[in-house]
Amino acid sequence: MRGYKKPTVSIIGASGYSGAELTRIISRHPSVKLDKLYAFSQAGNSVSDLYPSLNLPAHYESYEGQTESDIYFLALPHGEALRLVPSLIEAGKMVVDLSGDFRLKNPEEHLKYYKQEKKAEACMTYAMPELFHEEVRNSTAVSNPGCYATSIILGLAPLCQTPLKENKVLDITCSAISGLSGAGRSSKTELSFAEMNDNVRAYKVGMHQHTPEILQALGTSASTPSFGFTFTPMIAPLTRGIYTVLNIFLDKHPAVSEIREHYEKFYRSAPFVRLRPAPPEILHVAHTNFCDIHIAEGQAKGSVTVITAIDNLIKGAAGQAVQNMNIMLGYDETLGLV
Amino acid sequence: MRGYKKPTVSIIGASGYSGAELTRIISRHPSVKLDKLYAFSQAGNSVSDLYPSLNLPAHYESYEGQTESDIYFLALPHGEALRLVPSLIEAGKMVVDLSGDFRLKNPEEHLKYYKQEKKAEACMTYAMPELFHEEVRNSTAVSNPGCYATSIILGLAPLCQTPLKENKVLDITCSAISGLSGAGRSSKTELSFAEMNDNVRAYKVGMHQHTPEILQALGTSASTPSFGFTFTPMIAPLTRGIYTVLNIFLDKHPAVSEIREHYEKFYRSAPFVRLRPAPPEILHVAHTNFCDIHIAEGQAKGSVTVITAIDNLIKGAAGQAVQNMNIMLGYDETLGLV
Amino acid sequence: MRGYKKPTVSIIGASGYSGAELTRIISRHPSVKLDKLYAFSQAGNSVSDLYPSLNLPAHYESYEGQTESDIYFLALPHGEALRLVPSLIEAGKMVVDLSGDFRLKNPEEHLKYYKQEKKAEACMTYAMPELFHEEVRNSTAVSNPGCYATSIILGLAPLCQTPLKENKVLDITCSAISGLSGAGRSSKTELSFAEMNDNVRAYKVGMHQHTPEILQALGTSASTPSFGFTFTPMIAPLTRGIYTVLNIFLDKHPAVSEIREHYEKFYRSAPFVRLRPAPPEILHVAHTNFCDIHIAEGQAKGSVTVITAIDNLIKGAAGQAVQNMNIMLGYDETLGLV
Amino acid sequence: MRGYKKPTVSIIGASGYSGAELTRIISRHPSVKLDKLYAFSQAGNSVSDLYPSLNLPAHYESYEGQTESDIYFLALPHGEALRLVPSLIEAGKMVVDLSGDFRLKNPEEHLKYYKQEKKAEACMTYAMPELFHEEVRNSTAVSNPGCYATSIILGLAPLCQTPLKENKVLDITCSAISGLSGAGRSSKTELSFAEMNDNVRAYKVGMHQHTPEILQALGTSASTPSFGFTFTPMIAPLTRGIYTVLNIFLDKHPAVSEIREHYEKFYRSAPFVRLRPAPPEILHVAHTNFCDIHIAEGQAKGSVTVITAIDNLIKGAAGQAVQNMNIMLGYDETLGLV
Repeated sequence: MRGYKKPTVSIIGASGYSGAELTRIISRHPSVKLDKLYAFSQAGNSVSDLYPSLNLPAHYESYEGQTESDIYFLALPHGEALRLVPSLIEAGKMVVDLSGDFRLKNPEEHLKYYKQEKKAEACMTYAMPELFHEEVRNSTAVSNPGCYATSIILGLAPLCQTPLKENKVLDITCSAISGLSGAGRSSKTELSFAEMNDNVRAYKVGMHQHTPEILQALGTSASTPSFGFTFTPMIAPLTRGIYTVLNIFLDKHPAVSEIREHYEKFYRSAPFVRLRPAPPEILHVAHTNFCDIHIAEGQAKGSVTVITAIDNLIKGAAGQAVQNMNIMLGYDETLGLV
Repeated sequence: MRGYKKPTVSIIGASGYSGAELTRIISRHPSVKLDKLYAFSQAGNSVSDLYPSLNLPAHYESYEGQTESDIYFLALPHGEALRLVPSLIEAGKMVVDLSGDFRLKNPEEHLKYYKQEKKAEACMTYAMPELFHEEVRNSTAVSNPGCYATSIILGLAPLCQTPLKENKVLDITCSAISGLSGAGRSSKTELSFAEMNDNVRAYKVGMHQHTPEILQALGTSASTPSFGFTFTPMIAPLTRGIYTVLNIFLDKHPAVSEIREHYEKFYRSAPFVRLRPAPPEILHVAHTNFCDIHIAEGQAKGSVTVITAIDNLIKGAAGQAVQNMNIMLGYDETLGLV
Repeated sequence: MRGYKKPTVSIIGASGYSGAELTRIISRHPSVKLDKLYAFSQAGNSVSDLYPSLNLPAHYESYEGQTESDIYFLALPHGEALRLVPSLIEAGKMVVDLSGDFRLKNPEEHLKYYKQEKKAEACMTYAMPELFHEEVRNSTAVSNPGCYATSIILGLAPLCQTPLKENKVLDITCSAISGLSGAGRSSKTELSFAEMNDNVRAYKVGMHQHTPEILQALGTSASTPSFGFTFTPMIAPLTRGIYTVLNIFLDKHPAVSEIREHYEKFYRSAPFVRLRPAPPEILHVAHTNFCDIHIAEGQAKGSVTVITAIDNLIKGAAGQAVQNMNIMLGYDETLGLV
Repeated sequence: MRGYKKPTVSIIGASGYSGAELTRIISRHPSVKLDKLYAFSQAGNSVSDLYPSLNLPAHYESYEGQTESDIYFLALPHGEALRLVPSLIEAGKMVVDLSGDFRLKNPEEHLKYYKQEKKAEACMTYAMPELFHEEVRNSTAVSNPGCYATSIILGLAPLCQTPLKENKVLDITCSAISGLSGAGRSSKTELSFAEMNDNVRAYKVGMHQHTPEILQALGTSASTPSFGFTFTPMIAPLTRGIYTVLNIFLDKHPAVSEIREHYEKFYRSAPFVRLRPAPPEILHVAHTNFCDIHIAEGQAKGSVTVITAIDNLIKGAAGQAVQNMNIMLGYDETLGLV
């Protein structure tokens, strides 16, 4: 890379958990250079005070429209990026937004699930590299998938996107368990250690904002879905990880061996998807960008069970964001991630 | 109760986690008297050494066919009770067996799921009080339900046993998360703290031995089921509790309000079942004999989501066992349990 | 107890963790009757919504000076009880205060550690039953010890209060690990699950408000201590329990056997202190009113190591408070606690 | 490094937790090349099956005296390395042993604490880089410090090795909390999740094998110590980390500012030791090679409190081992570790 000047990267919203993972990955990335870390309530504070494990001699700065870097990651609460992204794009910057602001094409779905109006054009390339590699490669501004959405879409895409022998998906039930870092750096009583240790709690049953995102990515929509989709998110006493059980009902009874082959083929060139002979475990993917998938024999007629595991902060957020940046920059997509 | 001599209770297999909970409950029960605690590898050891929180000045003894107590609880590894129960029944003892040995009526299912031959007649009253109160009251020897089975059957029975307006159940998917005490006092590497902290792991997918038990209790069978039943058990980093998400597909689309009413009616006289307006939590039922049930609006056509939570060692084992004993003795079924 | 009307008990500050444990214990106590549950931010809410495991059909009420019960427990943030207790005493009520408001006799120490002025007379009987049984029995208004203080004082009293063969204590170092319920129902980011899982953190090193309380109970004072006392409190990822390691340096080298005998003698009539041959464990005392104590051979000249374990919410708060009430009422002190 | 052939590294005992961390670090190290992974019970198994997060396409092999690599790490149960190291040294290999086999110079102490005879000469350079950098640099075979020992020695060395103004250390008390990975991949019942969740347990009080190692490194010995040393190791419910509280009694009363300066000076050229203004946290050092140290004002006359935190598998084992290798190879000691 002699003579080559590494692109510079700044992170807006660097003080949350996803922002801290982005900081860690970007600061060690061999082919980009970490530039500024922007934060809001933490502006002025030292990175090493908030995240001593990062060991970075830097301070969080206040973001006031700076555009001096080549690439911008935004890891902000939903709603903030809608405001900041347009001028970054206008300034010719490469943008990866980790919020939900630019994921949904349908403004009515956005309003319903995010309680916020937005225009139909406020939608960027939905950057799930395993499904939309070409689109990502041809983009300079992308919207990074949600954490649950990643674990669910990767488990379903081979059956929903390129149906197996015209075997149509009829119904899907999905139970997903998330670690508590998924809720962000939180000061809510119900997410305190004493309330979540030894506990499991379902929430937003049937109302989670990743539902329309999942259906859109799978080629249908929450408004007029082409199959039933039932999603129950839960939190359990672990810090990282999403563990997802998918029960898929198909038109015709599938042979599990055929389905496995189909998944193998589908993910042949996806370096971060691993098909596993036994059920995955969070420990197997924690602190990595892998999505592990296990396909189990269906127990009911026409059904198959697919189980996936990811690290919500890596493959479900910062890792996938860097994977997308790598693709947009024309790099090997695993750079800085293994 | 003046002049009344309390029935005496002995526990065979008192040194496991369910045995210890039985010991705790029976030792504080107002209307029975704890007699002997039998154990195998722990025979000769002091109860207070193994379970100091019980604070009982007793020793585990070796069981060699004693029949001096009025009531016997058996909390043994599967296979052991088959050998011991017949002579206890013959000696006229009241028996509550917590193992799977006497649950399945179909010897072929027993062989398939427990890898052990048994005769068809080796089956005792299946003692789930909320469903079979009368049968339990008229029995003197009963088989206590499994822990997953309890959490699942209670969530399904109102729809499967007494269908709502002839609304037939077509398919059920079930994801259930168990605390690690469910695996018993274990010395397996994969259940060590370092392997299970921050982890989630599915296991026995489609092969769990509670599957035939659940279907039998719901009036059908694993061999020729009248509806699809897909069960994915998981372990997560908590000690106690089972959290179960049930997605039920019905013939006709149900109104959630009607289903809630139906459940209210079904469990009207069940003191340990609580219908809850929000998703249950393990912390709400831990150390209690309650089963909390929440019914959520279905997200797909014809479906409804039911979520249940129990303490696997109490309602899923020792508490339900004592509830059954209370019923058999003609006591208030909540005695010693609230 | 025929013809006897049970005394009624109300709890002011019933919605915190100690208040909930008090509610649980009092509602099952055989010889008192739970009357009102008062709370501040939770006033108007249902007890069963906040603590479903209590299963109590009651609501939290607003406290506005009511005096209709016989006995009042106060489990309030520090500072609140100072305001409420005087009128309860004036109304002739029995009072057990669980806060730090009435523990310190020295107003300067109170100001220094609680950042609040109070008068010297605002001090009630310091109700550690194992040390001050007579005083408690003769009191009608008492101040319940702090959680760390309980675990530390019980480990030290036999050597500090009734020195062994004039073997003077020279120095004590104390490291204590608390579960997170010790911080109360909290909405602080640093006590969230994601921040405390897999973590250990010391805090208030050398500045914890239980230091003067401990020294006062041991017959000396923080202002002019008769021995060195070094206290490092820590929090670790567990909900309940305090685990305390005490290294005690004595004037003359002690024989560990003599010390054990001395402790045995000292706690001969203390039903909740258990001297254990091996190091205690939190699991051995969780959900009980026991304080387990182990005495290990000293590793340095003149030293001995004492390790104690309690449940911070029971022996460190609600259980000890009920033990004190039992004593004040002339009941067996274990009533409702085993 | 053009034209330079990277040294090859093999790991004997690669399937335990320290071995897995070594594998991870070495496989990503920029200036050495991972060669073979040897294991005993896991020989023949795939690395990716046992540690999927490593994502290495390799198998564990059986070690039968191979010497084809340039560098050997041994991460074996105590006793095994004694047998294997001599022939590796004879074959001219660079050796880093992570066991206790070669740490103690005094055969009697080795026999007492490791229950195994060894000769006085079976002792290699004690490789704590912050204290013995020169010796390590001049060695080709070193003994890597124990995990507790690392956290304790680094907290004490500045006061014990280069006394501050002739301020002699008189007594030290040490309480240290370890995560459960410290016990290795275990199948012991007492280390199962259900036994350690929500628990704390002291063990080997006054008998831990790191005691003589600590005293030897600090320039004295367990047989004739020049100061009192009292060590209480504990396990708590976390996977990684050691948290150590040291109370140090000195001859003269120290000014905490002077002590802080003294530590700053002592660790000026130690890239992995960080002096922190607030108490450290396990989360701050987890998955890093840092040792964080906080010095608190002494609470008793002549005392100071020092608190340290490390990741037991990194700075307490694999990371420090690689740091030592870096030094022996003449590399920057942080290579592959930040």
